[in-house]
Amino acid sequence: MKIIYSDRHRLHAGDKEMYRGQLVPCFEKPERADFVYDAVKARNFGPILEPKEFAVAAIERVHAPRYIRFLEKAWDLWSAQGYTNDALPAVWPVRGHRTDIEPDHFAGKFGLYSYDSGTPFTAGTWAAAKTGADIALTAQQIVGGGERAAFALSRPPGHHSGPDFFGGYCFVNNAAVAAQAFRDNGAKRVVVLDVDYHHGNGTQTIFYDRSDVMFLSIHGDPRTEYPFFLGHADETGSGEGLGYNKNYPLPAGSSNALWFDALGDAVRRINEFKPDALVISLGVDTFADDPISKFQLREPEYLKLGAQIAALNLPTVFILEGGYAVAEIGHNVAHVLQGFEDAAK
Amino acid sequence: MKIIYSDRHRLHAGDKEMYRGQLVPCFEKPERADFVYDAVKARNFGPILEPKEFAVAAIERVHAPRYIRFLEKAWDLWSAQGYTNDALPAVWPVRGHRTDIEPDHFAGKFGLYSYDSGTPFTAGTWAAAKTGADIALTAQQIVGGGERAAFALSRPPGHHSGPDFFGGYCFVNNAAVAAQAFRDNGAKRVVVLDVDYHHGNGTQTIFYDRSDVMFLSIHGDPRTEYPFFLGHADETGSGEGLGYNKNYPLPAGSSNALWFDALGDAVRRINEFKPDALVISLGVDTFADDPISKFQLREPEYLKLGAQIAALNLPTVFILEGGYAVAEIGHNVAHVLQGFEDAAK
Ligand SMILES: [Zn+2]
Ligand SMILES: [Zn+2]
Repeated sequence: MKIIYSDRHRLHAGDKEMYRGQLVPCFEKPERADFVYDAVKARNFGPILEPKEFAVAAIERVHAPRYIRFLEKAWDLWSAQGYTNDALPAVWPVRGHRTDIEPDHFAGKFGLYSYDSGTPFTAGTWAAAKTGADIALTAQQIVGGGERAAFALSRPPGHHSGPDFFGGYCFVNNAAVAAQAFRDNGAKRVVVLDVDYHHGNGTQTIFYDRSDVMFLSIHGDPRTEYPFFLGHADETGSGEGLGYNKNYPLPAGSSNALWFDALGDAVRRINEFKPDALVISLGVDTFADDPISKFQLREPEYLKLGAQIAALNLPTVFILEGGYAVAEIGHNVAHVLQGFEDAAK
Repeated sequence: MKIIYSDRHRLHAGDKEMYRGQLVPCFEKPERADFVYDAVKARNFGPILEPKEFAVAAIERVHAPRYIRFLEKAWDLWSAQGYTNDALPAVWPVRGHRTDIEPDHFAGKFGLYSYDSGTPFTAGTWAAAKTGADIALTAQQIVGGGERAAFALSRPPGHHSGPDFFGGYCFVNNAAVAAQAFRDNGAKRVVVLDVDYHHGNGTQTIFYDRSDVMFLSIHGDPRTEYPFFLGHADETGSGEGLGYNKNYPLPAGSSNALWFDALGDAVRRINEFKPDALVISLGVDTFADDPISKFQLREPEYLKLGAQIAALNLPTVFILEGGYAVAEIGHNVAHVLQGFEDAAK
C-alpha cells in the first residue's frame, strides 16, 4: 500500500505539556513519526509519497470555520503579544458559560477552543496540522480512486480534536476529514474504527448525530483513563445518529482476549452496516510497554488486528494516531500493516 | 463594624499558576489578607473576631454536594498518588462531553470541577476555603442579628466559584453562601453587588434563574478581560430569574466617571428591588496600579464607593474578593469601609 508522509510534521514540536500539576517534556514528539517512517520504509510496503495540497474547505466539512480561522492565525496572535514560548490554555468555558462569543483576547479565544493543557500550540502547529489533514485526504483520494488501502502517516494525531476544539495532542481530526471526504466523493456509508488506547472523543463528537458515518472505538475506560469525559458504553448516538456510535470501554490492564472480543463485536457491526469505505484511527498506545497506557498488545496481536481489518474487505485508509513507546512505535504500526497486507493478498 | 478573620487563610498558599503558557508565582497569596488585616486593624473599625464554625450544609445550599465532597477529599486523593506539589487541572469536559459521571481518576474528577489552571489546589486549600465560608457566614449572622454592617476578611476569594466549579483563585463562593444565609434566615430579597474588576461568573451562575437574589456586577469587558466567557450585558437572567441579573462590562481603561455611571445605575436598580440585605463582593483590583487589571480607582473613588453603598441604607456584609497590588490592597479596602462608616453614621 502507498504511504503518505511529509517531514512538515516536524514543524510541530512542543516543548512542555501540563501533567500532574507540572510542566513536563511532551510525550508527543517528532521522533514518533520518524520511527514510523523508518519502519514502514524498511518493510517496503509501497511507495512513500508526498501529500497533495487540499483547500481548507475539506477540513471545514467537519470543523467549525471559526475554529479553523483561529488555528490559522493563533501563533501570529500569540507571538504579537511578545511571547516566544509555546501557548497553553489557562481558562476555559465551564458549565453555564458562553461559547457563542469568541473573545477578543488571545487567552479567551485559545481557551474557548481547548480541552486540555497538555497540547502546546507552537509556531509550526497549524502548518503541521494542515499538512496532516492533507496527508489523510491524499490517502483517501488514492483509496477512493480504486486502491485497496493506504497509510496516512499524519502527525500531529487527530482523533481527540472535535468540531471546534483541540486537545490530546490533536488539532485537526484527520480521520474525520478522510471519512467525510469518502462521503463527499460518493461513498454512502463510511466507518471510522478507532483502535487507539484512548477514546476518540473528537471523532465521536463530530459524527454523533449522523447515520452515514458509523464510529466505533475500543479504548481504556474513561472512568480511569484519558479523556475521562466521553467514551462510555451508553453513548450510542443521538437523533439520526442513534445506533451508529459504539464504544467499547475496557478496564485498564484488560487481557488481549477481552480486547479481541470487542474487536470481534465491532467487526460484526461493521459488516452489518455494509459501509463503502473504512477509516482506521491507528493508535498503537495499546502496546504492552506504552508509558502512558495500560493494554497488553504486542507483535502477534498487531498482526492479528491487521488481518481482521483486511477480512472486512473494504477500501481502507489507515491514519496514525497515538503511541508513546517511541522506539517501538514504528514496529507496532508496521505489524498492523503487515498483518493487513498478508491477509489482503 | 466588626471584622471577621482567621489566620487559617494561610493554609492556602499556592506555589505556581499557569499564565501565558508558563508556570509563574501565584498572584493570589497570603500576604494579601495580611495587608488587609493590618490596615483595618490600624483604623480601628471595630473588633476583629474569629469566625464560628458552620455545618457544611450551609455551603451546599449554593454548591453541588458532589463538588463539596470532592473538595473535602481532593488533597488526600492527590497526595495518595505520591504527589507533593500543588494540583493543577490538565483536562476538562468541553462541548459535547459528559459531566454526569464523576470519573474515578483524580485528574478526571479535578478537571470536571475546574475552569482554569491558575488556581492551584494545595494541602490546606479546603481548610482555608471552608474557613473563608465560615467567615462570610459569621458576618452574615452578625448583620442578620441586627448590626448595620460587617466585613468578612475571607481568603481565598469566592466570586469566581460556581455551583460545581472552581477557578479564578476561588473554591467556595463566600458571597453566595452569605446571600443564601440571609434568605435562609428570613430575608425575602437579597442583592449581591460585585465591584471586583473581574466579572463574578460564579455568583451569576449560582443565582441566574432566581428572582430572590439579584446579582449586579461592574467589571472589565469579558471580550478582553478574564474570565472571558461570562459577564456580557445581554445576560439578564433566565426563567424566574429574568431581569434579576445585571452586568456592566466596561472597557479596560475606563474612566472613573464611566465606572460611577454604572454604579449609579446599579444603585437605582437595587433601590427599586427593595432588598432586605446587601452583600458586597469587594474586590479592589479596580485599583489604578493593580498589576493584572485596568480600571483607575484610587483613594477618593474608594471612599466614594463606600459612601454610595452606605446610602443604600441596607444591612450590609462586605466580603473580600480580589486585589493584587499587594502592598496597597489594605488601604484600598480600608478606604471603602471608611467611606461607608463615615456616611453611615
Ligand atoms: Zn492514544
Ligand atoms: Zn478580580
